[in-house]
Order: sequence, then structure tokens, then C-alpha cells
Amino acid sequence: MPRWTPHADERLIKAAIALFDQQGYEATTVADIASSAGLTKRTFFRYFSDKREVLFSGAQELELLWVGALTEAPDDAGPVAAVMAGLDAVAEMFTERHAFARIRARIIAANPELQERELIKLERLASAGASALEQRGANPSAAALAAQTGVRIFHLSFARWITQDDPAAFRRLIHEAMDELRELLAS
Amino acid sequence: MPRWTPHADERLIKAAIALFDQQGYEATTVADIASSAGLTKRTFFRYFSDKREVLFSGAQELELLWVGALTEAPDDAGPVAAVMAGLDAVAEMFTERHAFARIRARIIAANPELQERELIKLERLASAGASALEQRGANPSAAALAAQTGVRIFHLSFARWITQDDPAAFRRLIHEAMDELRELLAS
Repeated sequence: MPRWTPHADERLIKAAIALFDQQGYEATTVADIASSAGLTKRTFFRYFSDKREVLFSGAQELELLWVGALTEAPDDAGPVAAVMAGLDAVAEMFTERHAFARIRARIIAANPELQERELIKLERLASAGASALEQRGANPSAAALAAQTGVRIFHLSFARWITQDDPAAFRRLIHEAMDELRELLAS
Repeated sequence: MPRWTPHADERLIKAAIALFDQQGYEATTVADIASSAGLTKRTFFRYFSDKREVLFSGAQELELLWVGALTEAPDDAGPVAAVMAGLDAVAEMFTERHAFARIRARIIAANPELQERELIKLERLASAGASALEQRGANPSAAALAAQTGVRIFHLSFARWITQDDPAAFRRLIHEAMDELRELLAS
């Protein structure tokens, strides 16, 4: 029976991120990651199907948080207000992960295959968000527009946030971007 | 020296679309496509690197048209007005391709790998659009927001357009979606 290793997944993620950053994503093997975390390859594969998935292991948590916040927004919140509640929850989750997010973004920016995987993640967020808004009673068209807009605001604000030194700035950047879009469309 | 074959690329696209639709994308080979078009595999590979690229051969034309229309929008048009000019040009190009677009969309919807390729195409349109808006003097933030919004409006309106019987409806659907987003954000 495999021995239980406390926080093995977190250790593997931390080791992988450090290695990807230092020696490049392509040059890093699963064996390198496991060894650097003081674990076996076998333990690695209990948590991740491949090295790419280490970088996307937070995607499910992000989607659950986003969909949960959309669902639990006040009953009288329209699609855009619900999306803003979802983005606030996401911003809060990310605040404590600023250093990690910066390094991860740098790794992804250097690798087209990872950029594609990131696009798929964003599209899933938009699609799951639209479904959650429909569940709240929004019409499909408004739900799709609001969810897509929210995901694009998230993505653009994320790109700004990681260039800034204040981890708590993400929420403000999201609101600024939404206000900017609102003004652009109104003018 | 290879013999010049008139409209070989168009014939190959037409044959490929028909075969993908009839027997499935996965089940169709390059040999099938060439044979159905009355051409050789060698001719196929003069035009396309693989069968997937047959479905994306219009991507460059679309991007050139979009970027061209953004660039040539009136000097006093803001980023969103320029984006609408770009979308109008795109809608006009698509109008005569309604039947083709419907079948292509059906093929793509059935294949996750093609959906990923489509996401990449959309992201490139957004990125090229943002650069064109910056060239016109828009600040990078407004350029990115307007271009991303335009591409999402295009994509959502496209999905509606192919369910409708009027090929000329694309432009109207785009404007309706933009108006709906404007109202959602203003409320």
C-alpha cells in the first residue's frame, strides 16, 4: 500500500513551477519534478496525468468557485451583477497566489501548447458561467454575453495584475476594466 | 513540373467539407478528399498541410479583412465604432458563405480538437484587432477590451446566424448582440 505523503500535491506543484521557471517547461521531466519534491514518479502520477496538468490543477477549483459565486449572488442581481460577484470571489482566491500566478503566467507565455490549454480553460469558464446564469433565470443570450464578458475582463485584468506589486489589486483592476468597457460601449 | 489545376483549392475544400459531413472528420483521409475532388494527394499537399487546415484555410482572409476594416474605419471612430466597422465587413464576407458555414460549424462542434483550433483562431483575431486599434491611437487597454468584445460578439452572433435561414441576417444579429451587451452593462 502506498505511504500517505502529506501535501504531496502541493509539494509537486511547487517543485514543478520552480523547475519550469529555472530550466524551462520543455526541459523538465516528471522524474525531475518528483525528485525535486523528494517523491517518486509513481506518487506524481497519483495526482497528475502529465506535467502539463500540474499547471492546470487549479482550474477545477477556479471553476467551482466562479460558478458557486454566480449561483449564490443575490436573487435580484442581474447577469452582469452576478458576474461581478463571481469575479470578486475569484479575485479574492487569487490574492494569496500572486507570486505563484506570476511565475505560472511567465511559463505559459513561453509555450504555445500551454497557451492553447489556457484558452480552453477560459472557454470552459465562460460556458460554465453562462449555464449558471441561465439557471438563475437569465435568457441564454444575456447569459452568454455576460459570462463571456466576465471571463475576458478576468483575463485582461489578470495580465495587468501580475505586472503589479500589490497582490490585493486584482479586485480593483477587474472593476476598473469593467468600468472602462462600460464607458467604451456607452460612448 | 506540376500541371496547373484551376480552382484546385476550392475543389478540395468543397470535397473535404462534403466528406467530413457525410462520413465524419476522423474517418476522412487526405486520399479520400483528393480522390473525391478528382485530384492527387500531392496536389492536396500543395495547398494544405493536413486535413484540419482545410477547415481553417479562410482564417487568414478573415483576419486580413477584419484588420483592414478596423484600420480603414473613419479617423474619428472610437475603438468600438471601428470594431463595428470590422464586424460589418466580416458579416458581408460571410453572407455568401452561409451554407458552407453551417456545415463547417457542425463538423467543428463534433470534434474537440477542431474546437481548440477555432478558439486559437478567435484569440488571434482579438489580438490582431487590438494591435490595429492601437495603431489607430487607442490606448492598449481600450484596444484590448474593444477587440475582445468584438470577437465575442462575432462568435455568439455566428452561432445564431447558422441556425437561421436568412444568410443576410448576420449583420443584424451582430448589431443586436452589441446592443444587448450595451444594455446589460448599462443596467
